[in-house]
Amino acid sequence: MDSISQPLYVAVAADMASLIAAGQLRPHDRVPSVRSLARQRGISVTTAVASLRHLEERGLIEARARSGYFVASPRELADEPVPVALPRTARLAGAQAMLRQLTDASLNPAVVRLGQAIPDAALFPRAALQRSLMRASRQTPTLVTAYALQTEGDAALRTAISRHYASVGARVDKRELLITNGCTEALSLALGAVARAGDVIAVESPTYFGFLQLAEMRGIRVLEVPSDPSEGIAIESLRALLAGPAGRSVRAVAVIPSFSNPTGASIPLNRRRELVRLCDSADVALIEDDVYGDLQHEGARIPPCKAFDREGRVILCGSYTKSMAPGLRIGFTAAGRYRDAMRAAKHITAGASAPLPQAAIADFMAGGRYERHLRKLRAAFARQVAQVSHCVQREFPVGTRISRPKGSFILWVELPGDIDTLALYEEANRYGVDFVPGSLFSASGRYRNCLRLNCGYPVTLQTEGALRRLGELIRTRS
Amino acid sequence: MDSISQPLYVAVAADMASLIAAGQLRPHDRVPSVRSLARQRGISVTTAVASLRHLEERGLIEARARSGYFVASPRELADEPVPVALPRTARLAGAQAMLRQLTDASLNPAVVRLGQAIPDAALFPRAALQRSLMRASRQTPTLVTAYALQTEGDAALRTAISRHYASVGARVDKRELLITNGCTEALSLALGAVARAGDVIAVESPTYFGFLQLAEMRGIRVLEVPSDPSEGIAIESLRALLAGPAGRSVRAVAVIPSFSNPTGASIPLNRRRELVRLCDSADVALIEDDVYGDLQHEGARIPPCKAFDREGRVILCGSYTKSMAPGLRIGFTAAGRYRDAMRAAKHITAGASAPLPQAAIADFMAGGRYERHLRKLRAAFARQVAQVSHCVQREFPVGTRISRPKGSFILWVELPGDIDTLALYEEANRYGVDFVPGSLFSASGRYRNCLRLNCGYPVTLQTEGALRRLGELIRTRS
Repeated sequence: MDSISQPLYVAVAADMASLIAAGQLRPHDRVPSVRSLARQRGISVTTAVASLRHLEERGLIEARARSGYFVASPRELADEPVPVALPRTARLAGAQAMLRQLTDASLNPAVVRLGQAIPDAALFPRAALQRSLMRASRQTPTLVTAYALQTEGDAALRTAISRHYASVGARVDKRELLITNGCTEALSLALGAVARAGDVIAVESPTYFGFLQLAEMRGIRVLEVPSDPSEGIAIESLRALLAGPAGRSVRAVAVIPSFSNPTGASIPLNRRRELVRLCDSADVALIEDDVYGDLQHEGARIPPCKAFDREGRVILCGSYTKSMAPGLRIGFTAAGRYRDAMRAAKHITAGASAPLPQAAIADFMAGGRYERHLRKLRAAFARQVAQVSHCVQREFPVGTRISRPKGSFILWVELPGDIDTLALYEEANRYGVDFVPGSLFSASGRYRNCLRLNCGYPVTLQTEGALRRLGELIRTRS
Repeated sequence: MDSISQPLYVAVAADMASLIAAGQLRPHDRVPSVRSLARQRGISVTTAVASLRHLEERGLIEARARSGYFVASPRELADEPVPVALPRTARLAGAQAMLRQLTDASLNPAVVRLGQAIPDAALFPRAALQRSLMRASRQTPTLVTAYALQTEGDAALRTAISRHYASVGARVDKRELLITNGCTEALSLALGAVARAGDVIAVESPTYFGFLQLAEMRGIRVLEVPSDPSEGIAIESLRALLAGPAGRSVRAVAVIPSFSNPTGASIPLNRRRELVRLCDSADVALIEDDVYGDLQHEGARIPPCKAFDREGRVILCGSYTKSMAPGLRIGFTAAGRYRDAMRAAKHITAGASAPLPQAAIADFMAGGRYERHLRKLRAAFARQVAQVSHCVQREFPVGTRISRPKGSFILWVELPGDIDTLALYEEANRYGVDFVPGSLFSASGRYRNCLRLNCGYPVTLQTEGALRRLGELIRTRS
């Protein structure tokens, strides 16, 4: 739309919006009154009222009773589903280079770690884990020198994982479990067991880029199903997809039901049951990434979808790299009917995982140590997420929308306007500011105006400075 | 050939051969003289002489000067190449079930461990490795709690591996190295980087079944190139293959140049250079499995093919699971021009390997500890291979041929007649005797009359008993 053809009140509103975007008017600042505005701009009171109403309708300013208008805070994401994605094949050209850059940023001590979803090492029980390593090593001295033959993994660790899931309401048979090199290997084996090149996988959108990369690498096509920012994958859309013509090529549905990466959405209990039933009736596998499942900010955790698995179609994947011992790289999968195929694939492509780290984690999980650690970790993540969210609300332009995760340690941010966060990243990185551009979370180029922030570290003055700088960079581009 | 149409001397010889196969005539037993034989069988002296000459020509009996004929000892494998294999696609249906059974046997303390290529845990420096683990853990306390970001692996370990190869005459740049979960992951990444489904890989024949399984899993076809039991892959056959019509689909050649699994063959230095040149001129990758490279029985080790790599086409793969710390599952690859692709694939499918085991191995390799350990290990393997070989010569039927490896800890045995070692395995296993059936080492069903023996454990009375029982079972089936 050309500005010359705009009504006068729209032009005035646009001018004020640009002041807000540039930060000259900041959140909570008082906006000129109707009379002041009319006088300042040489316009009628009617036009001034229309301008302010226009800004209010767009969410840029808000009326406070008996006090006039104020610049609005960035709003939280409304519970509205994202638009339906068109079926598209994963195309992630360049994503690997981007991820390489993100890793380099994470390794650079001068960069504020708001990018990769990595928690501060100081949040983990170092001394207790080292004691567990030593105890395990003393108890079975040949862990280091004996050949690792059990591809399925350490029996004590599988028992501990089975017990942990039992305590959160999910029956996971230890014979169904396979210990892996992080959750990544579990997801890779799961995808390999259910689909071949040319097959189709349905994913919630946006979703974890690592999974999209796994699919792309295997030549598996991805269908993006809309996802609610609060309740996760839109089950009705999925049902329609599976019943439609494209549904016949779908081999699996992949979701992160608890605190999805990146939106933080969590599928409610009854919808988890519904999702498993839907996969059963459509005869497709359900790959459940539960890597954040233990990280709810308050209350008891919701049982995983695996709790409703009656036919062995749910492949539960998880790890302790985000919740207990990042450096030990221990993940797992409860693979249901796909267990033998996944075990064979692990045997052929990597062999058993090293036994000592497994034994150490089994030792640590014994006697309630994991539960006690989780209580502290959850509180820290809740605090850090609130702090980063607060900074974003203060520093980012009006019109910004922020996720409201109830667990884990990441925030999903949608920026106003048509800003491209991939281009923004290059500039931000030069200033030592890190984040993950939104388009990495889609196989079809969506979410270019979004970004993900890591809240794994306590918020310091440096973090605040980085978010302020990021807000400024965004404003100069909007 | 029908027995009725046989000449009489052949029928008599066949009858005597069956007595030898059944163990009624044992190695070094005196064979009836010409006159006794003629009298016993009611045949002419001429026919008796022809019968004995026929047995002598087949290597079943031998003449001793002025003493007459004796039953021959099993011969060692002659340096004759195996027949040329027809191009075939890998078909390993059932191999995984077989391998599962082999693993179960290895885990069963009642079974004598002559199956999987696994060395005795007692041969490895347990206490020193545990000290290295503790030192590494103390030096970098966050190894357990910090997220593992370096997909390429620990810098100190890569430096140590680079130095080790420099000491044996191969320049391996630390930037070219990638640390993996055992040699298995290195081979899997290598295959993924050079070939796609439908492509062709040339392998020496017989070769390591794990590599055949990796190829099968990826839909990659395998061409088996004849291999000399002493000097490894027949380079002239490979050259003809690459120049012929099938050569255009070949993407890589995969060999185990030092102490090949299963034959123990070792490619001589000048032929290694020739092999690399051939791959360079044909523009195919050379996947070099060097997992046994450090395990020569005497003298200095031959540099790997990688030493002759000028164009980055050699993907050297190795590990410390056979030579230093089996339980830590640390492997590596020096991937030349394929390094970035392999690093990306590792990042996507498994992430970085756990840092603590890597740091421990780097610590152990510092200060010559690995070299000192290798000296003892090589002597133990040489002794054990000689002992098992001696038992086989004593206990197996005449006509058996045995490999003469100059390194590592496995023996390859070719049985006389048309015995099927896959069927033999089932029976042997019931008696607590383990080995690997020969047909696992071929993608085209060859080597059914062969078997591989693990010499990773010191030979005890139990080992001798197992080999005696195995010899008896073979005799009842020949």
